[in-house]
Amino acid sequence: MGFSSIFVSEALGTGVLILLGAGVVANVVLTKSKGFDGGWLLITFGWGLGVFGGVYVAYKTGGHLNPAVTIGNLFSGAKEYAPGIEVNFTNTVAYLSGQMVGAFLGACGAYVAYKKHFDEEPDEGKKLGVFSTGPAIRSYTWNFLTEVIATFVLVFVILAFGKTPSGLGPLAAALLVVAIGASLGGPTGYAINPARDLAPRLAYALLPTRHTAPVAPERIPATVSSGATQRVVEENPGDPVSSTEKNADWSYAWVPVLGPLIGGALAGLVAHWYL
Amino acid sequence: MGFSSIFVSEALGTGVLILLGAGVVANVVLTKSKGFDGGWLLITFGWGLGVFGGVYVAYKTGGHLNPAVTIGNLFSGAKEYAPGIEVNFTNTVAYLSGQMVGAFLGACGAYVAYKKHFDEEPDEGKKLGVFSTGPAIRSYTWNFLTEVIATFVLVFVILAFGKTPSGLGPLAAALLVVAIGASLGGPTGYAINPARDLAPRLAYALLPTRHTAPVAPERIPATVSSGATQRVVEENPGDPVSSTEKNADWSYAWVPVLGPLIGGALAGLVAHWYL
Amino acid sequence: MGFSSIFVSEALGTGVLILLGAGVVANVVLTKSKGFDGGWLLITFGWGLGVFGGVYVAYKTGGHLNPAVTIGNLFSGAKEYAPGIEVNFTNTVAYLSGQMVGAFLGACGAYVAYKKHFDEEPDEGKKLGVFSTGPAIRSYTWNFLTEVIATFVLVFVILAFGKTPSGLGPLAAALLVVAIGASLGGPTGYAINPARDLAPRLAYALLPTRHTAPVAPERIPATVSSGATQRVVEENPGDPVSSTEKNADWSYAWVPVLGPLIGGALAGLVAHWYL
Amino acid sequence: MGFSSIFVSEALGTGVLILLGAGVVANVVLTKSKGFDGGWLLITFGWGLGVFGGVYVAYKTGGHLNPAVTIGNLFSGAKEYAPGIEVNFTNTVAYLSGQMVGAFLGACGAYVAYKKHFDEEPDEGKKLGVFSTGPAIRSYTWNFLTEVIATFVLVFVILAFGKTPSGLGPLAAALLVVAIGASLGGPTGYAINPARDLAPRLAYALLPTRHTAPVAPERIPATVSSGATQRVVEENPGDPVSSTEKNADWSYAWVPVLGPLIGGALAGLVAHWYL
Repeated sequence: MGFSSIFVSEALGTGVLILLGAGVVANVVLTKSKGFDGGWLLITFGWGLGVFGGVYVAYKTGGHLNPAVTIGNLFSGAKEYAPGIEVNFTNTVAYLSGQMVGAFLGACGAYVAYKKHFDEEPDEGKKLGVFSTGPAIRSYTWNFLTEVIATFVLVFVILAFGKTPSGLGPLAAALLVVAIGASLGGPTGYAINPARDLAPRLAYALLPTRHTAPVAPERIPATVSSGATQRVVEENPGDPVSSTEKNADWSYAWVPVLGPLIGGALAGLVAHWYL
Repeated sequence: MGFSSIFVSEALGTGVLILLGAGVVANVVLTKSKGFDGGWLLITFGWGLGVFGGVYVAYKTGGHLNPAVTIGNLFSGAKEYAPGIEVNFTNTVAYLSGQMVGAFLGACGAYVAYKKHFDEEPDEGKKLGVFSTGPAIRSYTWNFLTEVIATFVLVFVILAFGKTPSGLGPLAAALLVVAIGASLGGPTGYAINPARDLAPRLAYALLPTRHTAPVAPERIPATVSSGATQRVVEENPGDPVSSTEKNADWSYAWVPVLGPLIGGALAGLVAHWYL
Repeated sequence: MGFSSIFVSEALGTGVLILLGAGVVANVVLTKSKGFDGGWLLITFGWGLGVFGGVYVAYKTGGHLNPAVTIGNLFSGAKEYAPGIEVNFTNTVAYLSGQMVGAFLGACGAYVAYKKHFDEEPDEGKKLGVFSTGPAIRSYTWNFLTEVIATFVLVFVILAFGKTPSGLGPLAAALLVVAIGASLGGPTGYAINPARDLAPRLAYALLPTRHTAPVAPERIPATVSSGATQRVVEENPGDPVSSTEKNADWSYAWVPVLGPLIGGALAGLVAHWYL
Repeated sequence: MGFSSIFVSEALGTGVLILLGAGVVANVVLTKSKGFDGGWLLITFGWGLGVFGGVYVAYKTGGHLNPAVTIGNLFSGAKEYAPGIEVNFTNTVAYLSGQMVGAFLGACGAYVAYKKHFDEEPDEGKKLGVFSTGPAIRSYTWNFLTEVIATFVLVFVILAFGKTPSGLGPLAAALLVVAIGASLGGPTGYAINPARDLAPRLAYALLPTRHTAPVAPERIPATVSSGATQRVVEENPGDPVSSTEKNADWSYAWVPVLGPLIGGALAGLVAHWYL
């Protein structure tokens, strides 16, 4: 299978994954959405079943959808990434680039699907949260470790799937992602996938997410009720959570990239030794 | 398989789908129901497992249950809609008409199952919501695009199912519908199926849903406490959400019909090229 | 297979079903339980997965666990209730009596598992709700119809399972029960099984559920704070929901028996004609 | 398969189980975690899917992950614990010791993943709850019986799995654990596994869980606002639920060890007679 076939397959699959994954967060956090405040279990099922759909779509390439999975396969000493796809430099680049481009496009799709809700949402922190992960308690060291641990479990169990054949197909990967979100997603929002976090963060930075709808009167301080909704944030300069300033939080962006890559590589090494 | 066999199979399956799908919304939104305020995840599971039941019932015709799926198959260039059922004009009409009639009857079944709760519910907006979808933020353009995107994912992944055989059977379609509801259902309530929306809307328009039970005293303004519950709405003429006037919102009805049809057709075309 | 083998198999399976099913309701409604107020989806999963466990346990007899399923099989014209078990009068009695006895014992098991929570719960209405179903809005006619419809779907889809083989095994029945609870459980609490309702109701009537722990001071009206907790109910004679008087509501008991039996029989007849 | 292979397999699998199981509780109970207050269903899915992941990882030894399962196999009269692993004293010790060590390490992993949340959580009762179970209403007799009943169901149904082959693989065990948590977890938090409770309790006793972050000002009584957060507990000496004193509750620790062992043994005996 050639570079472009691998690229397209992983891009389509990862696109579906991020469309559904970013979608469920938008559903839960954006104002007026029907699933608003739907809870963490809804989020974990949304992401898990996003994997479910994405793996079917990327069936030609084994549905990695995640650089950490590809790297984990590489470090496990596998001969093939999927039946008929040799592990080599070119194919690795095809996987990773397809995943990144697909994740970017999927994030744009989620933006289109929830366009009016982005327009009416004044809180830019929530919007970034639709696209990318962020820490509950910021600590680069411990956030990084959490991502390493969670991705280790993801990739190690995926590599173990082949040893206990079942009729679950892509559902096994989906349920594993539900599990990790339920159990290890609390501190960092479980990126566990560099493409899932980095490409949508870029999409967030580039998309015109700034809300265009007028803020409801009761939310505008009296002094700015003449219409300058942008000035609302200036009234609360110290509150990053509900800021209306766009901020892609690039200083955190390396954590959900390096953490998953290292977790995936470690899982591959241990699997090589053990499985 | 003849016209009437296809018609009956799709009607039975779609009937079960809508009975369970409208049922779960009734359970969550209608006053005094035991699942009242049960959350979005309950709704997504109710609809998803409605597909689960419906596909088993319509096993003779492959369980389309959805004109967008049938149209997606048509545009994908498939030779058969199901084993032994050729793709041709007559069979297409049998599928679509069976789906519409079944959806209508399933909606009536949900009405009967929740009869007393309809009787005691004064809010006609909630009742319409049991039968048909409506936008969280009304915008024909963006609501339409959301339905196109969501249905594209539905039909494209369904067409990909055959490429990764599993032991899940109808559960795969069910989980995909849970996924789409969780992730892309926020803006429009995810019709993703013209029959699911149009036929129940007609049922709503025809069924005697007006509540007959007296409104609880504390909900009746003093001036109408002599019994004219209809006049309550006149007290709040500007509030469409809690209106007690019957209104099937026909001006929106084309969105959840055309959006899914176009999304399904696009999925078929892309599947024809790619899968 | 002889009478006693059928009886024991169905009794064990139905016992596990009711132990888990009554258990999940106890978990959600009884004071101080860890799953208190856990929501309708938790209840539907508890009952659905109760079926999952029960069907495995009753594998020798096909895991009916429900007179409506047995009657549905009878009316469908099946030759066997399960491989090697002929449809005849003796075997039918073995199924039904095993189901009733198992349901009674399972209810007693749930009582033991939640003994201290029964002791500390003053509301007898909640305790009855652990064992048996009751209507959200009492109406014998409509409650009966809801049970007929819900059981029809249950038995008809079960009879259709054999036409679409999958690798789900007992999970298919479990998910179907989740579906019916989510979608059609709102008005009556979805008995859909005469044994599930009648035998635990008898258990409730016989078990010493009256609470023995002192009512917390703030819940006792000043005039009865000297210890006569029984008199609390006399303070609220018109409020059946929070009564502390034991009441098995026998006047309703026929609805969740006859409704499911008729729904199951109808499903069998339609399946005989159609499937 | 030798002692060390069995030991490592069960340790890895049980480690993943406890990492995910303790993780989901941390996610739901620890301050600032993204899944905070996520509900009982989230907890039951987290533990159930922890079993899912753990069984795949321990595929070489059949994924017992639980001394009650091993003992249940022993008492059922099985010849092998897993294909190629004879039931004998040495292998039994290998299973049990691997489970204990793995559970200890998995608990430490959950501590690392949620390190900052432990640091900022002043309530030691919640922290113990991440690692080990505790009764909702303390009663050694009834808590013990609840654990016996719940573990009996777990082990008996697992022993019945082989009689109804499906394509579910490890998902069957996972769903059974969800079922037991939903239905029988209310009184004691469903240890149903001695390793799951005892080893993490030891981990809790040894790990430096005492919070190091300053208590938020509004939570500190005025008299201790100078920084001595330890003194907060002295202000509420009678409230064990929100104590900031470390307390591993060793007086309860025998219940979730003996209860599951006896429940598992009974299940094995009944399975030997019946299945």
